Amino acid sequence: MHRNKILEDIEVDYLYHLGLDSSMNLKALFGNVKFVCMGGSPDRAYEFVKKIQERSDKTLIIEQFGKTERTSLYKIGNVISMSHGMGMPSILIFLHEITKLLEYAGCIDYIFLRLGTSGGIGIEPGTLVLTTEAVNSNFKAVFDHQVLDKTYSFPTNLDSKLIARIQSCVKTTSRLVLGKTLGTDDFYEGQGRLDGALAPLYTDIEKHDYLQRAFMMGVRNIEMESTAFAAFCVRADIPSVIICVALINRLNGDQITSTKEEMKHYTDNLLDFVAGFVYDQSDCIK
Amino acid sequence: MHRNKILEDIEVDYLYHLGLDSSMNLKALFGNVKFVCMGGSPDRAYEFVKKIQERSDKTLIIEQFGKTERTSLYKIGNVISMSHGMGMPSILIFLHEITKLLEYAGCIDYIFLRLGTSGGIGIEPGTLVLTTEAVNSNFKAVFDHQVLDKTYSFPTNLDSKLIARIQSCVKTTSRLVLGKTLGTDDFYEGQGRLDGALAPLYTDIEKHDYLQRAFMMGVRNIEMESTAFAAFCVRADIPSVIICVALINRLNGDQITSTKEEMKHYTDNLLDFVAGFVYDQSDCIK
Repeated sequence: MHRNKILEDIEVDYLYHLGLDSSMNLKALFGNVKFVCMGGSPDRAYEFVKKIQERSDKTLIIEQFGKTERTSLYKIGNVISMSHGMGMPSILIFLHEITKLLEYAGCIDYIFLRLGTSGGIGIEPGTLVLTTEAVNSNFKAVFDHQVLDKTYSFPTNLDSKLIARIQSCVKTTSRLVLGKTLGTDDFYEGQGRLDGALAPLYTDIEKHDYLQRAFMMGVRNIEMESTAFAAFCVRADIPSVIICVALINRLNGDQITSTKEEMKHYTDNLLDFVAGFVYDQSDCIK
Repeated sequence: MHRNKILEDIEVDYLYHLGLDSSMNLKALFGNVKFVCMGGSPDRAYEFVKKIQERSDKTLIIEQFGKTERTSLYKIGNVISMSHGMGMPSILIFLHEITKLLEYAGCIDYIFLRLGTSGGIGIEPGTLVLTTEAVNSNFKAVFDHQVLDKTYSFPTNLDSKLIARIQSCVKTTSRLVLGKTLGTDDFYEGQGRLDGALAPLYTDIEKHDYLQRAFMMGVRNIEMESTAFAAFCVRADIPSVIICVALINRLNGDQITSTKEEMKHYTDNLLDFVAGFVYDQSDCIK
């Protein structure tokens, strides 16, 4: 039942950052979960369950669980929607804890979906990117993970069947492209921005050369969680996908200058698309 | 005035994750700031300004600024208290944006303090650790920072004068030790825990060997921001300190099993100590 056999010998497992523990009746609370949807922001986690609720013909209740200091975790029907903060170290914490929670709850055949915001490369703001491969800063499909004093390179292949299932949902009106997603450990220097607080380590020419090379390698967007998310799901054998909306085309600039209304339109586009997919796949919430 | 000269040519700088921008009258709002206190959690950011307010004889107002989706930013007197999420990538975002904000506000002679929670090594839960050196997983005092396709190793030396000033505040009743702080990019495998979701990559013996070596090297606690925080402050020439409370002694186990009351007692100990230091140093809030 547990991917980590050591868990079988722990009397009570405190899922510290979720604020839940294995002494609770997790089977009753979460036993039916088939979809775990996660994104950076707590607000978006709530908006997503609202979209599911509005779409359903059933009277579905939104429940919130755990403490809200580090994440916001909602459940509606067989769907969990939760926030994971920003960056690989933050998302890894929640990937470990939510996976353990699903194991304690006896869940089977669940999938993980990351719904993110991102900087586009060569695509217009508002475009959705369905990730074919999560790549590191050298455009390799691996996650370099420091474990004690060793560095591991874990593969980041995403589930091609699940990608195809999502593609089949695309209506001609949706602006969705498939592409590689570059996962970085920094928003400013790590993504080639020149508007950080510190004296730049590279020139404008070097920045554009890097972004152009990324584009030529098939990268269509940049964010801060993809390689860790994909590598974790490969290791855990959990089918997973990453769908992000681009807030900006990084070939045109560094600053996110969209208005509040534009931003809401972009993220609504993302949430509606994923809510539509989850709804189609789940008899429980139809 | 700007550490990054390119900022001088940006008409309006959108500090995206703060939800503030340079077209606002930042000088009027933040021009007097001398202390920027930051920690992982929004709740703790608020508790800290409450402690300052309670301590002061003046009638000080707590103000909140910006959007609350990614951080909570409070101001009281000449003190900013804000949350930075979990992990180096997350804290770097806020370090860049708050530093730019202080520059636009025309602030001078300010210091950065990180108030964190951490896993202790060879110390009792509740003990405060004042960081002498932030070290990476190989116990070296550097932050390895991936910038486009190059890796930089930036030094992480903290300000020894500021450390001495803080030490001079210590009352005999405070449980405070000086030591190195290990900054990792992961809470589970990166810190040698055996209670993650995945099959362990190391044995219990290897884990204990690593933690013992850390202790022998002078490491007294582990958290997830120290090396990035210290390296940023060195590069920006901002005096900075890191003070964390240990929630656990990692030589005795992996799980954080403290009760809510114990946890509050530990973090109160941290917040009271730092509030006392800031209060002593600032005529503005006395």
